[in-house]
Amino acid sequence: MGVEKVFSYTLANETGVTSDQVRKDFSEFNIKGNKRGGYEINDLLETMENIFHRNKDHNIVLIGMGNMGLALSKYSKFVQRNMNIVATFDIDPFKQKIRSDIPVYSMSRLQEIIDRFRVRVAIIAVPEISAQEVSDELVRLGIRGIVNFAPFLLKVPPDVVINNVNLCDELESVIYCVHRQIKADGLKNIELLYKDMKY
Amino acid sequence: MGVEKVFSYTLANETGVTSDQVRKDFSEFNIKGNKRGGYEINDLLETMENIFHRNKDHNIVLIGMGNMGLALSKYSKFVQRNMNIVATFDIDPFKQKIRSDIPVYSMSRLQEIIDRFRVRVAIIAVPEISAQEVSDELVRLGIRGIVNFAPFLLKVPPDVVINNVNLCDELESVIYCVHRQIKADGLKNIELLYKDMKY
Repeated sequence: MGVEKVFSYTLANETGVTSDQVRKDFSEFNIKGNKRGGYEINDLLETMENIFHRNKDHNIVLIGMGNMGLALSKYSKFVQRNMNIVATFDIDPFKQKIRSDIPVYSMSRLQEIIDRFRVRVAIIAVPEISAQEVSDELVRLGIRGIVNFAPFLLKVPPDVVINNVNLCDELESVIYCVHRQIKADGLKNIELLYKDMKY
Repeated sequence: MGVEKVFSYTLANETGVTSDQVRKDFSEFNIKGNKRGGYEINDLLETMENIFHRNKDHNIVLIGMGNMGLALSKYSKFVQRNMNIVATFDIDPFKQKIRSDIPVYSMSRLQEIIDRFRVRVAIIAVPEISAQEVSDELVRLGIRGIVNFAPFLLKVPPDVVINNVNLCDELESVIYCVHRQIKADGLKNIELLYKDMKY
């Protein structure tokens, strides 16, 4: 659109944080703008791409091809951000084969694939009961970061990065905010009622 | 196990935040402990259940029964936290019927189900292209909170709660931390090497 610069308050508005937070986060990474002109959009995008390693390919393995694994294997946005699921694994490699575009291997080929594609990050989508076992195996084979969709809090060594995604929490935070808003609405209605009564 | 009290540092350690943060968050909700004795576990659990409305049933609808919708409809932990997906919807209600334990309705029955079960929160798992349209419809029918799994940033009115779940971000934060750790390892190795050279 021909726009070359962006202000912290514009970014803050779009992302739902304060402009102070935007400036603070940016300065953390040595990104500098100025009060009059804001930030150069092109510079900003390039720096962000570097920070998040978006300009590089990331080879990822996905373990567990149940419903969640299948959904994740088809999640289109991963590819757009250079996150390539190079292979998926399941104890029953034949089960999902016809439903996926990505190869489904048996667990015995994990080491070979991790080494061949220099994989450092894995997604776990196996049932709760086998999640820790799979995680331990991945760490043993050289995986350094795990995104866990199994409903189980995985424990990993301190030099391994773990993100235990809890879908209940995603839902619970919305339920919490809705209740708070409904309560606030209730108070507002009472206030309005009180006001009506006075006049 | 007979334990009756818990300290902020124990909770901090388990959740990966600082004990200062635990105490600050608790005091925000008027939860009081003391330095010697810590927090009464039973009181704490009860208060938490109240804060997050876990002791009440929450009726939820799920829109979109593709792979992601199917995975979410079978996510066992929702029920354990009293989050009941009472019905799912799809423009093709026959497609997924045999694969789900929860009824799959056509979109035309949305109003009826929302009213009958007094549903205030919805999960969206439709394709990107129809997500905003579905969201607008839900808001029109009285939904007050939406958890969105479609890879699209939904816009809602200010009195509606929205949680745009971005699975790329979950993966990207792990990739970011892994790169940072590998880089730090590299520096550590260089330091060790340098140390070796000195002696």
